[in-house]
Amino acid sequence: MRGDLYAADCPSRQVLDRIGDRWSVLVVSTLAGGTLRHSGIAARIHGITPKMLTQTLRGLERDGLVHRTVYAEVPPRVEYGLTDLGHDLVGLMRRLEEWAETHIADVESARSTYDARETASRK
Amino acid sequence: MRGDLYAADCPSRQVLDRIGDRWSVLVVSTLAGGTLRHSGIAARIHGITPKMLTQTLRGLERDGLVHRTVYAEVPPRVEYGLTDLGHDLVGLMRRLEEWAETHIADVESARSTYDARETASRK
Repeated sequence: MRGDLYAADCPSRQVLDRIGDRWSVLVVSTLAGGTLRHSGIAARIHGITPKMLTQTLRGLERDGLVHRTVYAEVPPRVEYGLTDLGHDLVGLMRRLEEWAETHIADVESARSTYDARETASRK
Repeated sequence: MRGDLYAADCPSRQVLDRIGDRWSVLVVSTLAGGTLRHSGIAARIHGITPKMLTQTLRGLERDGLVHRTVYAEVPPRVEYGLTDLGHDLVGLMRRLEEWAETHIADVESARSTYDARETASRK
Protein backbone atom coordinates (compact mmCIF):
# COMPACT_ATOMS: atom_id res chain seq x y z
CA MET A 1 0.00 0.00 0.00
CA ARG A 2 1.27 3.41 -0.93
CA GLY A 3 -0.41 6.72 -0.08
CA ASP A 4 -1.45 9.55 -2.38
CA LEU A 5 -1.21 12.90 -0.61
CA TYR A 6 -3.21 14.61 -3.35
CA ALA A 7 -6.29 12.44 -2.75
CA ALA A 8 -8.79 13.99 -0.35
CA ASP A 9 -9.27 11.00 1.93
CA CYS A 10 -5.79 9.50 1.97
CA PRO A 11 -4.54 8.87 5.52
CA SER A 12 -1.00 9.72 4.43
CA ARG A 13 -2.01 13.36 5.08
CA GLN A 14 -2.14 12.51 8.78
CA VAL A 15 1.38 11.11 8.54
CA LEU A 16 2.47 14.38 6.99
CA ASP A 17 0.91 16.25 9.93
CA ARG A 18 2.88 14.13 12.36
CA ILE A 19 6.26 14.38 10.66
CA GLY A 20 5.79 18.11 10.07
CA ASP A 21 4.67 18.90 13.61
CA ARG A 22 7.04 21.27 15.41
CA TRP A 23 7.27 19.29 18.64
CA SER A 24 7.42 15.91 16.93
CA VAL A 25 10.41 17.06 14.89
CA LEU A 26 12.25 18.25 18.00
CA VAL A 27 11.40 15.14 20.07
CA VAL A 28 12.43 12.66 17.35
CA SER A 29 15.65 14.55 16.80
CA THR A 30 16.35 14.65 20.55
CA LEU A 31 15.75 10.89 20.95
CA ALA A 32 18.14 10.16 18.08
CA GLY A 33 20.93 10.35 20.67
CA GLY A 34 19.44 7.56 22.81
CA THR A 35 16.57 6.79 25.18
CA LEU A 36 15.53 9.43 27.70
CA ARG A 37 13.00 9.96 30.43
CA HIS A 38 10.24 12.57 30.11
CA SER A 39 12.26 15.02 32.22
CA GLY A 40 15.39 14.42 30.14
CA ILE A 41 13.58 15.34 26.92
CA ALA A 42 11.94 18.37 28.53
CA ALA A 43 15.34 19.65 29.68
CA ARG A 44 16.64 19.67 26.10
CA ILE A 45 13.65 21.34 24.40
CA HIS A 46 13.23 24.71 26.04
CA GLY A 47 9.70 26.02 26.32
CA ILE A 48 7.83 22.76 25.75
CA THR A 49 5.23 22.29 28.49
CA PRO A 50 5.06 18.90 30.29
CA LYS A 51 1.53 18.44 28.95
CA MET A 52 2.54 19.16 25.36
CA LEU A 53 5.49 16.79 25.66
CA THR A 54 3.22 14.04 27.03
CA GLN A 55 0.78 14.54 24.14
CA THR A 56 3.58 14.57 21.58
CA LEU A 57 5.11 11.37 22.98
CA ARG A 58 1.72 9.65 23.00
CA GLY A 59 1.13 10.61 19.36
CA LEU A 60 4.60 9.45 18.33
CA GLU A 61 4.10 6.17 20.20
CA ARG A 62 0.71 5.61 18.58
CA ASP A 63 2.23 6.21 15.13
CA GLY A 64 4.99 3.68 15.82
CA LEU A 65 7.85 6.20 15.87
CA VAL A 66 8.64 6.05 19.59
CA HIS A 67 8.54 3.15 22.05
CA ARG A 68 7.85 3.53 25.75
CA THR A 69 9.51 1.17 28.23
CA VAL A 70 8.35 0.90 31.84
CA TYR A 71 10.91 -0.50 34.31
CA ALA A 72 9.41 -2.20 37.35
CA GLU A 73 11.12 -0.09 39.97
CA VAL A 74 9.66 1.91 42.85
CA PRO A 75 8.72 4.43 41.64
CA PRO A 76 8.44 2.96 38.11
CA ARG A 77 10.97 4.36 35.64
CA VAL A 78 9.68 5.17 32.14
CA GLU A 79 11.99 5.68 29.18
CA TYR A 80 11.33 6.75 25.62
CA GLY A 81 13.33 5.76 22.58
CA LEU A 82 13.01 5.65 18.80
CA THR A 83 11.69 2.59 17.00
CA ASP A 84 13.26 1.51 13.69
CA LEU A 85 10.62 3.60 11.92
CA GLY A 86 11.51 6.57 14.13
CA HIS A 87 15.22 6.16 13.36
CA ASP A 88 14.35 6.11 9.66
CA LEU A 89 12.89 9.59 10.09
CA VAL A 90 15.86 11.22 11.85
CA GLY A 91 17.71 12.29 8.71
CA LEU A 92 14.64 14.05 7.36
CA MET A 93 13.90 15.75 10.72
CA ARG A 94 17.46 17.06 10.81
CA ARG A 95 17.08 18.50 7.31
CA LEU A 96 13.87 20.27 8.36
CA GLU A 97 15.65 21.74 11.39
CA GLU A 98 18.61 22.75 9.28
CA TRP A 99 16.41 24.52 6.75
CA ALA A 100 14.43 26.37 9.44
CA GLU A 101 17.56 27.49 11.30
CA THR A 102 19.41 28.50 8.14
CA HIS A 103 16.59 30.47 6.53
CA ILE A 104 15.03 32.20 9.52
CA ALA A 105 16.64 35.52 8.51
CA ASP A 106 15.18 35.29 4.96
CA VAL A 107 11.73 34.51 6.31
CA GLU A 108 11.79 37.29 8.93
CA SER A 109 12.90 39.78 6.28
CA ALA A 110 10.08 38.68 3.94
CA ARG A 111 7.56 39.07 6.76
CA SER A 112 8.67 42.62 7.54
CA THR A 113 8.33 43.60 3.89
CA TYR A 114 4.91 41.94 3.60
CA ASP A 115 3.58 43.50 6.81
CA ALA A 116 4.83 46.97 5.87
CA ARG A 117 3.13 46.70 2.46
CA GLU A 118 -0.14 45.47 3.98
CA THR A 119 -0.11 48.30 6.52
CA ALA A 120 0.55 50.88 3.78
CA SER A 121 -2.24 49.55 1.56
CA ARG A 122 -4.71 49.87 4.40
CA LYS A 123 -4.01 53.59 4.92
CA MET B 1 21.86 35.15 11.95
CA ARG B 2 21.14 31.49 12.52
CA GLY B 3 18.23 30.08 14.52
CA ASP B 4 18.29 27.65 17.42
CA LEU B 5 15.18 25.48 17.44
CA TYR B 6 15.90 24.28 20.96
CA ALA B 7 15.69 27.80 22.42
CA ALA B 8 12.24 28.68 23.73
CA ASP B 9 11.83 32.04 22.01
CA CYS B 10 13.59 31.39 18.70
CA PRO B 11 11.43 32.41 15.72
CA SER B 12 12.88 29.49 13.70
CA ARG B 13 10.16 27.40 15.37
CA GLN B 14 7.61 29.35 13.35
CA VAL B 15 9.54 28.53 10.19
CA LEU B 16 9.36 24.86 11.16
CA ASP B 17 5.59 25.18 11.56
CA ARG B 18 5.32 26.60 8.06
CA ILE B 19 7.51 24.07 6.29
CA GLY B 20 5.89 21.19 8.17
CA ASP B 21 2.32 22.34 7.57
CA ARG B 22 0.31 19.82 5.55
CA TRP B 23 -1.18 22.30 3.11
CA SER B 24 2.00 24.33 2.74
CA VAL B 25 3.89 21.18 1.72
CA LEU B 26 1.30 20.31 -0.91
CA VAL B 27 1.03 23.86 -2.29
CA VAL B 28 4.81 24.38 -2.56
CA SER B 29 5.17 21.02 -4.26
CA THR B 30 2.32 21.79 -6.66
CA LEU B 31 3.79 25.18 -7.60
CA ALA B 32 7.16 23.56 -8.32
CA GLY B 33 5.79 22.79 -11.79
CA GLY B 34 5.11 26.45 -12.59
CA THR B 35 2.81 29.35 -11.73
CA LEU B 36 -0.90 28.64 -11.29
CA ARG B 37 -4.10 30.46 -10.46
CA HIS B 38 -5.98 29.78 -7.22
CA SER B 39 -8.39 27.48 -9.09
CA GLY B 40 -5.52 25.61 -10.75
CA ILE B 41 -3.93 24.80 -7.40
CA ALA B 42 -7.29 23.82 -5.88
CA ALA B 43 -7.91 21.40 -8.76
CA ARG B 44 -4.68 19.51 -7.98
CA ILE B 45 -5.06 19.24 -4.21
CA HIS B 46 -8.27 17.34 -3.59
CA GLY B 47 -10.19 18.28 -0.48
CA ILE B 48 -8.54 21.63 0.23
CA THR B 49 -11.23 24.26 0.80
CA PRO B 50 -10.95 27.58 -1.08
CA LYS B 51 -10.64 29.38 2.26
CA MET B 52 -7.84 27.10 3.49
CA LEU B 53 -6.01 27.52 0.19
CA THR B 54 -6.30 31.30 0.43
CA GLN B 55 -4.95 31.26 3.98
CA THR B 56 -2.10 28.92 3.03
CA LEU B 57 -1.12 31.08 0.04
CA ARG B 58 -1.20 34.22 2.19
CA GLY B 59 1.05 32.58 4.81
CA LEU B 60 3.48 31.33 2.16
CA GLU B 61 3.55 34.78 0.55
CA ARG B 62 4.19 36.48 3.89
CA ASP B 63 7.06 34.07 4.59
CA GLY B 64 8.62 34.82 1.21
CA LEU B 65 8.07 31.37 -0.29
CA VAL B 66 5.39 32.28 -2.83
CA HIS B 67 4.94 35.40 -4.93
CA ARG B 68 1.58 36.70 -6.11
CA THR B 69 1.32 38.47 -9.46
CA VAL B 70 -1.75 40.49 -10.44
CA TYR B 71 -2.25 41.04 -14.19
CA ALA B 72 -4.23 44.17 -15.08
CA GLU B 73 -6.94 42.47 -17.07
CA VAL B 74 -10.71 42.62 -16.68
CA PRO B 75 -11.36 40.72 -14.48
CA PRO B 76 -7.83 40.88 -12.97
CA ARG B 77 -5.87 37.64 -13.30
CA VAL B 78 -3.88 36.54 -10.25
CA GLU B 79 -1.12 33.95 -10.45
CA TYR B 80 0.97 32.29 -7.77
CA GLY B 81 4.51 31.00 -8.17
CA LEU B 82 7.50 30.04 -6.05
CA THR B 83 10.18 32.56 -5.10
CA ASP B 84 13.84 31.49 -5.05
CA LEU B 85 13.42 30.65 -1.37
CA GLY B 86 10.34 28.57 -2.21
CA HIS B 87 12.22 26.71 -4.94
CA ASP B 88 14.96 25.97 -2.42
CA LEU B 89 12.38 24.16 -0.30
CA VAL B 90 10.96 21.90 -3.03
CA GLY B 91 13.44 19.05 -2.59
CA LEU B 92 12.72 18.84 1.12
CA MET B 93 8.93 19.01 0.60
CA ARG B 94 9.19 16.12 -1.88
CA ARG B 95 11.13 14.06 0.65
CA LEU B 96 8.42 14.70 3.28
CA GLU B 97 5.74 13.61 0.81
CA GLU B 98 7.75 10.56 -0.18
CA TRP B 99 8.20 9.51 3.45
CA ALA B 100 4.51 9.97 4.29
CA GLU B 101 3.34 8.06 1.22
CA THR B 102 5.86 5.25 1.65
CA HIS B 103 5.31 4.67 5.36
CA ILE B 104 1.56 5.10 5.68
CA ALA B 105 1.08 1.31 5.98
CA ASP B 106 3.62 1.09 8.85
CA VAL B 107 1.95 3.98 10.67
CA GLU B 108 -1.57 2.62 10.24
CA SER B 109 -0.45 -0.78 11.49
CA ALA B 110 1.20 0.80 14.56
CA ARG B 111 -1.99 2.75 15.28
CA SER B 112 -4.16 -0.37 15.16
CA THR B 113 -1.85 -2.15 17.60
CA TYR B 114 -1.73 0.85 19.94
CA ASP B 115 -5.50 1.40 19.89
CA ALA B 116 -6.22 -2.31 20.50
CA ARG B 117 -3.84 -2.31 23.49
CA GLU B 118 -5.36 0.89 24.92
CA THR B 119 -8.87 -0.52 24.56
CA ALA B 120 -7.83 -3.78 26.25
CA SER B 121 -6.17 -1.99 29.17
CA ARG B 122 -9.31 0.02 29.84
CA LYS B 123 -11.49 -3.11 30.29
